[in-house]
Amino acid sequence: MPAGHAPAPAAGSGATFTDAERSAMELALAEAGRGVRGANPLVGAVVLGPDGTVRAVGHHRGAGTPHAEAAALDALGPVDPAEAALLTMAVTLEPCNHTGRTGPCAGAIAAAGIGRVVYATADGTDRAGGGAEFLAARGTEVASGLLGERARELNHRWFAARAAQRPFTTLHLAQTLDGRIAAADGTSQWITGPAARDHSHGVRARADAILAGTGTVLADNPRLTARNADGTAAARQPRRVVMGRREVPADAAVRGDGNWTQLATHDPSEALAALAADGTDHVMIEGGAAIATAFLAADLVDEVWLYQAPLFLGAGRPAVGDLGIGTLADARRWRLDDAGGPAHQRLGDDVALHLEPAPAPAHNAPTRAEERN
Amino acid sequence: MPAGHAPAPAAGSGATFTDAERSAMELALAEAGRGVRGANPLVGAVVLGPDGTVRAVGHHRGAGTPHAEAAALDALGPVDPAEAALLTMAVTLEPCNHTGRTGPCAGAIAAAGIGRVVYATADGTDRAGGGAEFLAARGTEVASGLLGERARELNHRWFAARAAQRPFTTLHLAQTLDGRIAAADGTSQWITGPAARDHSHGVRARADAILAGTGTVLADNPRLTARNADGTAAARQPRRVVMGRREVPADAAVRGDGNWTQLATHDPSEALAALAADGTDHVMIEGGAAIATAFLAADLVDEVWLYQAPLFLGAGRPAVGDLGIGTLADARRWRLDDAGGPAHQRLGDDVALHLEPAPAPAHNAPTRAEERN
Ligand SMILES: NC(=O)c1ccc[n+]([C@@H]2O[C@H](COP(=O)([O-])OP(=O)(O)OC[C@H]3O[C@@H](n4cnc5c(N)ncnc54)[C@H](OP(=O)(O)O)[C@@H]3O)[C@@H](O)[C@H]2O)c1
Ligand SMILES: NC(=O)c1ccc[n+]([C@@H]2O[C@H](COP(=O)([O-])OP(=O)(O)OC[C@H]3O[C@@H](n4cnc5c(N)ncnc54)[C@H](OP(=O)(O)O)[C@@H]3O)[C@@H](O)[C@H]2O)c1
Repeated sequence: MPAGHAPAPAAGSGATFTDAERSAMELALAEAGRGVRGANPLVGAVVLGPDGTVRAVGHHRGAGTPHAEAAALDALGPVDPAEAALLTMAVTLEPCNHTGRTGPCAGAIAAAGIGRVVYATADGTDRAGGGAEFLAARGTEVASGLLGERARELNHRWFAARAAQRPFTTLHLAQTLDGRIAAADGTSQWITGPAARDHSHGVRARADAILAGTGTVLADNPRLTARNADGTAAARQPRRVVMGRREVPADAAVRGDGNWTQLATHDPSEALAALAADGTDHVMIEGGAAIATAFLAADLVDEVWLYQAPLFLGAGRPAVGDLGIGTLADARRWRLDDAGGPAHQRLGDDVALHLEPAPAPAHNAPTRAEERN
Repeated sequence: MPAGHAPAPAAGSGATFTDAERSAMELALAEAGRGVRGANPLVGAVVLGPDGTVRAVGHHRGAGTPHAEAAALDALGPVDPAEAALLTMAVTLEPCNHTGRTGPCAGAIAAAGIGRVVYATADGTDRAGGGAEFLAARGTEVASGLLGERARELNHRWFAARAAQRPFTTLHLAQTLDGRIAAADGTSQWITGPAARDHSHGVRARADAILAGTGTVLADNPRLTARNADGTAAARQPRRVVMGRREVPADAAVRGDGNWTQLATHDPSEALAALAADGTDHVMIEGGAAIATAFLAADLVDEVWLYQAPLFLGAGRPAVGDLGIGTLADARRWRLDDAGGPAHQRLGDDVALHLEPAPAPAHNAPTRAEERN
């Protein structure tokens, strides 16, 4: 379990749960997976009636939007206090007790008069924790630990990022089927098509910061803004971050309106520490190859959006350089990630894969007697 | 249009079709796509009643199984001659007139007494053609050319292979997300998992021949047999073909029961010509890298099954070597192929992509004013 606040009073391994609560938590986990990864963890909530029927569901749709508990209460609509006291809320993460971009969930649950709250795992961050204690003090019945392992696994990289006090990171890679980002002569526009580019602009628009190396900035002079499909600027713009020591020209597009910064380092941990100190909770790593390689090699990538164009180049610049892996067993395994949409999908002519680091070393060893080709 | 026999008598651009026939041909094309690529083309057939309702559908499931027309007649069941005379069959390819592994379709349609046959495009091979002529001579109304362009595009590589009198080719590639088949120290077992290997054994079992280079044979000593998920031998076994000049050891597993051959050449066209002369209609190219690269560079791959394991290696042996492509615009474009199953699918921890060469140069050029990153 990630480090965090003191355990909630009503929690503990001694808690027992009804079958209806278990089913509700399964549903809450599935709901959680409908959200997007980034600054906030994936969270789902389900409101159960006294007869065990599902009265409402909710999930968190990403930073700046209502938390799962608030979404579920909203879907439930007004209920009188006598009825509310008979309701149970199952939520995949301990309700928060702090006022961030949205109000505290523990307060909202108490105000709604919900009689019992069952949560899967503690939040594990000092700034959000304490919700269980708050609720118990208001007379709400609170129990924790139901499907806790699965709830922790769902957000295992988010918890790891929080424990390390660094932003959650999303790596963007756009390449050919043989992992190239440019042909032998350097030509690279366009490998992937408009649908893939639109999709990645959607990811940009969710991030607090977008990071590219000086190599990309000097070679392509990108703006690194988030744009809608019609080319207009997205409502929310990430801070633009250039990593590397070379000077960024005075007329570089990345300077734009001034909401940019340069991190004169080659150390991914140092870059992330600087971003965290600036209040960045989610950074999208746009590339290029040297930057992508450095973050992958340091195991500092929490999710990957891999856009693959249907062609082979056979030569040219690889998307990922040397990771220091000598033998197959040393390679980190990833896994397909359905959170926030299909793990594999067609985007125009291209295919997008969504991946997250596998929580534990995957055992891909042969399980059958016959394995020789 | 591919070269072939003389045009059928009732055919021609002057033919007119009803809306029901057009819808039926759309359906027949979709049905065709349910079949698998290989020795035979994808074909679909639909039987229409006089009121335009669909009475039966059928598709060809691959070499050795009934043709689409026979499958549709079978689904239709027995009908009396007066009723049959009022039925129309829409079929995506001219009914064959030869007895191969199955009887001639033109004969079966005439025997069933179907009144009218509408087909999309001629077969284009001397050995199968003549069906339209046969049917017209028996008094069946025949018209051709309905959605002909789409029917030709559906099998464009099959037609091209036939025109060149070479087998249809399926390339198998199993690699990491960055296109590697082995780590820096040569370790490669197992990159992909059992589900991906089982899938590729299914492809093997459909092929007439399976081809690997001497490099793979000497390095891995593979058996190159088709095996079921439980490790037992599949009922149908492809002929094993080793390409290259080095001697295959007397105790090499590939020699097996003796149903193997060596092609002492480095020229993919020469290898395919030798296989065609041997009666091979469909060859699966298993690899390794040198062989895969040679067939891709010669544009002699008609479909690809690409199995991707969720990891990055950053170094090690690439799946595809130099293709002689200098600049992006010279790369051949592929397209996702839904024939015979989803073009992208999850297989265990891995992702399989099914691709075919794009029929015409894809235009991936920016279509919007705003395209700078
Ligand atoms: N397909 C894609 O997804 C994608 C996305 C973005 C860019 N690209 C392409 O990638 C190409 C640029 O790639 P690139 O590798 O040259 O550029 P890059 O990764 O953007 O930048 C490389 C530079 O970053 C600095 N840097 C910071 N940390 C580093 C580290 N740990 N290791 C090495 N360098 C570090 C160094 O610059 P200093 O010397 O200044 O310190 C280095 O020269 C461009 O052609 C661009 O079009 C592709
Ligand atoms: N992941 C996969 O999908 C997959 C599949 C199969 C194999 N593999 C791996 O691939 C590795 C072997 O790859 P490889 O490239 O060394 O072996 P390869 O492609 O199997 O065989 C290479 C040999 O084929 C002959 N050859 C025939 N035509 C050629 C041409 N046009 N160009 C070059 N050579 C030609 C040459 O042998 P001669 O000197 O004898 O003429 C050459 O040395 C093994 O490690 C194996 O495990 C991977």
